[in-house]
Amino acid sequence: MASFEASLIRSGIILPEVAAPAGLYQPALRVGDFIYTSGQLPIVSGRLVEPAGKGRVCDERQDAVVTAARIAAINAVAALRAAAGSLDEISRIVKLTVFVSSEPGFTNQHLVANGASSLLAEIFGDMGRHVRSAVGVAALPLDASVEVELVAACLPL
Amino acid sequence: MASFEASLIRSGIILPEVAAPAGLYQPALRVGDFIYTSGQLPIVSGRLVEPAGKGRVCDERQDAVVTAARIAAINAVAALRAAAGSLDEISRIVKLTVFVSSEPGFTNQHLVANGASSLLAEIFGDMGRHVRSAVGVAALPLDASVEVELVAACLPL
Amino acid sequence: MASFEASLIRSGIILPEVAAPAGLYQPALRVGDFIYTSGQLPIVSGRLVEPAGKGRVCDERQDAVVTAARIAAINAVAALRAAAGSLDEISRIVKLTVFVSSEPGFTNQHLVANGASSLLAEIFGDMGRHVRSAVGVAALPLDASVEVELVAACLPL
Repeated sequence: MASFEASLIRSGIILPEVAAPAGLYQPALRVGDFIYTSGQLPIVSGRLVEPAGKGRVCDERQDAVVTAARIAAINAVAALRAAAGSLDEISRIVKLTVFVSSEPGFTNQHLVANGASSLLAEIFGDMGRHVRSAVGVAALPLDASVEVELVAACLPL
Repeated sequence: MASFEASLIRSGIILPEVAAPAGLYQPALRVGDFIYTSGQLPIVSGRLVEPAGKGRVCDERQDAVVTAARIAAINAVAALRAAAGSLDEISRIVKLTVFVSSEPGFTNQHLVANGASSLLAEIFGDMGRHVRSAVGVAALPLDASVEVELVAACLPL
Repeated sequence: MASFEASLIRSGIILPEVAAPAGLYQPALRVGDFIYTSGQLPIVSGRLVEPAGKGRVCDERQDAVVTAARIAAINAVAALRAAAGSLDEISRIVKLTVFVSSEPGFTNQHLVANGASSLLAEIFGDMGRHVRSAVGVAALPLDASVEVELVAACLPL
């Protein structure tokens, strides 16, 4: 049986501590056998990564923002783990939503989203195959370039 | 045990009657132990509140639109109650999504969303702590400034 | 008892084969008694329908894009069926989200969304009455005009 904690270690992916949100909400929440995360930004050590994590995305910045999407997804997985206790309590990544702050004319939101999808595949393998929506939005909080949210299923308590 | 109906009265918050949507959808829907609401606009008595409930948001209009987000959240809670029968059937506010119609350069969608989050805290206390995504969109139906949707968990039937 | 497969035939609606996504995700996923779809585009035979399925929406293009939303919804229902085995395994359409790629000043996203809602009513009747959010976004993958995602409830296995 696969251990997602073990594959995390094998992949060399370091999940950060989950910072408490500034507001009246929380990074992730378990309800029944589902865990929902808040929208996560490409933040490392409390700051948006520069320059890929900030500003609207155009074709020239696309490759860098794939990495920003990966970082936001790492933060989302860290929030999942904090809510579940261990990644091995997760049975399935269900849904990924990727909001990409987009310049007019940028239409590769799906390629940006691949940065998040491939991170989930690295950690969760077949159980990381999810449904997904990727959309291009006008702006994101703190001028982030990308925001990632997850729904996961977990083993019954 | 907390009564959310009682805290509603204590807070002086008046939930409106839920208007039937014009289209082929409904304001909220219970499925199993979850209730989903439709996206709710800052409408009072059938009209978008003026001026905060209309148009795209910029820095100058931010504070007013926090109030519009609160009004949209009140409408979402009214829809929840209509689907649940009573707020005391709600066990948890799970997820809040806030779409903010945003001028280029407006990046405080999270502060607008606090208008909805704080309303949920007033009514539901600790059971109102939710996960949340806030994004800035290009436009909203009827030129609304903000749209709010909720997912809640409820007590088993 | 209603058969949704029968009403599909009566309506003359032909569901396409579900194409495998290019990426690390899948068109739909059943988890417990819910099915989630990925965001679906107005694609027929592997291409965005021209001209309604492409580009940002303005008032002049609204009626055509209602049809594009219907096509995207047909693709979403096809994905639901592939995940459920049969439409008769679906007990309820729960939630519809419609993202409309919007020119500044276009604020009839709800009317575009009706193209998807009415398709669901044709197939699922009263069990197709859903909650819904419609928002106007800056851009969509491949320059699609509209993206549609669904959550459905299904009969227990």
